[in-house]
Amino acid sequence: MPELRRDPIIGRWVIITKERGKVKKDFEQISEMDTSEGCPFCSGKENLTPPEILSFREPGTRKDEKGWWVRVIPNKFPVLRVEGNINRRGEGMFDYMDGIGAHEVIIETPKHDADFSDLDIKQAEEVIWAYRDRILDLKKDIRFEYILIFKNHGADAGASLSHPHSQIIAMPTIPVRVKQEIDGSRNYYEYKERCIFCDIIREETEANTRIVSENEDFICITPFASRFPFETWIMPKIHSSIFEDLSKHEVTNLALILRDINGRMNKTLEKPPYNFIIHNSPCRTGKIPYYHWHIEIMPRLTKVAGFEWGTGFYINPTPPEEAAKFLREID
Amino acid sequence: MPELRRDPIIGRWVIITKERGKVKKDFEQISEMDTSEGCPFCSGKENLTPPEILSFREPGTRKDEKGWWVRVIPNKFPVLRVEGNINRRGEGMFDYMDGIGAHEVIIETPKHDADFSDLDIKQAEEVIWAYRDRILDLKKDIRFEYILIFKNHGADAGASLSHPHSQIIAMPTIPVRVKQEIDGSRNYYEYKERCIFCDIIREETEANTRIVSENEDFICITPFASRFPFETWIMPKIHSSIFEDLSKHEVTNLALILRDINGRMNKTLEKPPYNFIIHNSPCRTGKIPYYHWHIEIMPRLTKVAGFEWGTGFYINPTPPEEAAKFLREID
Repeated sequence: MPELRRDPIIGRWVIITKERGKVKKDFEQISEMDTSEGCPFCSGKENLTPPEILSFREPGTRKDEKGWWVRVIPNKFPVLRVEGNINRRGEGMFDYMDGIGAHEVIIETPKHDADFSDLDIKQAEEVIWAYRDRILDLKKDIRFEYILIFKNHGADAGASLSHPHSQIIAMPTIPVRVKQEIDGSRNYYEYKERCIFCDIIREETEANTRIVSENEDFICITPFASRFPFETWIMPKIHSSIFEDLSKHEVTNLALILRDINGRMNKTLEKPPYNFIIHNSPCRTGKIPYYHWHIEIMPRLTKVAGFEWGTGFYINPTPPEEAAKFLREID
Repeated sequence: MPELRRDPIIGRWVIITKERGKVKKDFEQISEMDTSEGCPFCSGKENLTPPEILSFREPGTRKDEKGWWVRVIPNKFPVLRVEGNINRRGEGMFDYMDGIGAHEVIIETPKHDADFSDLDIKQAEEVIWAYRDRILDLKKDIRFEYILIFKNHGADAGASLSHPHSQIIAMPTIPVRVKQEIDGSRNYYEYKERCIFCDIIREETEANTRIVSENEDFICITPFASRFPFETWIMPKIHSSIFEDLSKHEVTNLALILRDINGRMNKTLEKPPYNFIIHNSPCRTGKIPYYHWHIEIMPRLTKVAGFEWGTGFYINPTPPEEAAKFLREID
């Protein structure tokens, strides 16, 4: 059972999985990415994965067989386990919880070599519907406080398989990064009585120097204080704190803008490795006026080193205004 | 001039250096590390660096020539610049400062291929004296709020040169990671009237499961909530909030334990890339009872990916008790 441990000084939780390597060679990266031949996420290889949790598939085809276009499975190497209780406890000055949670993989397409920008719009929408279905289902489990959807694309971004997939982790505590955002947004709201994300959208629209792309429902910007070169954020234009409240119309427009941004990034940066995260409200938070769900996309072009670990500062060599210009002008 | 920008939501500062690449190839890692032939940090190559700020050298030898055993120079590619004023300002909802600071390199030995564990004890002590001298000097500049000493060793830890060196960055604001530690420690002190680091040392000494090494003045542990496999912390046993208050005796013992830990890590993990940071009190904080300076050493064996960026959580596959056992038993 993995264990969550709380740093006694700053309160940050760490997941100790207890299952992997101890000496250097155990940590060595599997550098050759899988080929379609041996890929467990390809169509026809369903027997190589744990039984599916959800799939969108052709009528008449059977679970864990061919015929699906989106497939959700448990992660074979979960960082948190679904069985058991949280079992919060202390030992002297130290705090533990059991590593309870869910860890699933969303296979975004049966095609091995596609990136999100290669999907047709219907397929891209289906990925978002799968995200939504899984969030709604996982939210029923009252042990979970937060559900994160994220994506590691490319070995340098931490992916171990190249077949397009995202991941979901449901966890028993609200992560510190999200808590900081919610606290910051709440403080701003208390002072201004306006959502800070809505204000950012308004200010960015006026300045028009960091907008990459937009459609009726969504805007994509390079944030003012971008941590990474070519970091982009996608936000719904109309205030919404809950991802799974997406209307059908918004699902289409989110699929369109995600595909568009992924394509621009792949063209400008020659298919970089990247991470993608959805920041949503915590599970038990109802609709709130001060938090605004959004997607953060971070190409992995620079290394994080001692200075960043020591300070929490980031060093970004590319001003977001320039990144936005590059991304905007490519077509 | 680099620019500091404040994230309006969570208040984190980012340094936008504005000087480096825009397209993918500009970010590509220089994978071949320098050889001693072309290394600007080697003895006899002093003309390849900016003029030295400090050196410990043989009597009769001249500045920027051979004869030194520790040499401090300005970083040729500084992330912050020393000239000018901080110039804090706002633009709409966004906050800026000019990127004022100092960025120096401490060349730890004239020998190209040594790691810290290869230094003789006198040489190791001299590196610490150089750290101390530079901190004392930089603290005179009232524009600086914080001085960080850190080290990136190995390309995967962000080093661009392999010759043993550390870096110093003086900056105009207290970094968020340090602020979190100080706030956490102050809260604990207000509640318990004891330093949390002193309590950790006491608890670790009793439990004796996470101690790697100790001497009269210092203890090295794998912290309870280690973020990374084989992460270690070195702390002075007697409470001290200020690194530069080190006595001569303590400098010797710090050199000894640093050399010891570096050697154990290199043996156990076959010379891993690593980052090393000194967490000291901010420049204008006098002696305080609740904060305790310390060194954090982080071998870079795992990749940080979407989950970590999205949550601020860390996933560590090696329990610190096991890491401590491995490091302790090697000799």
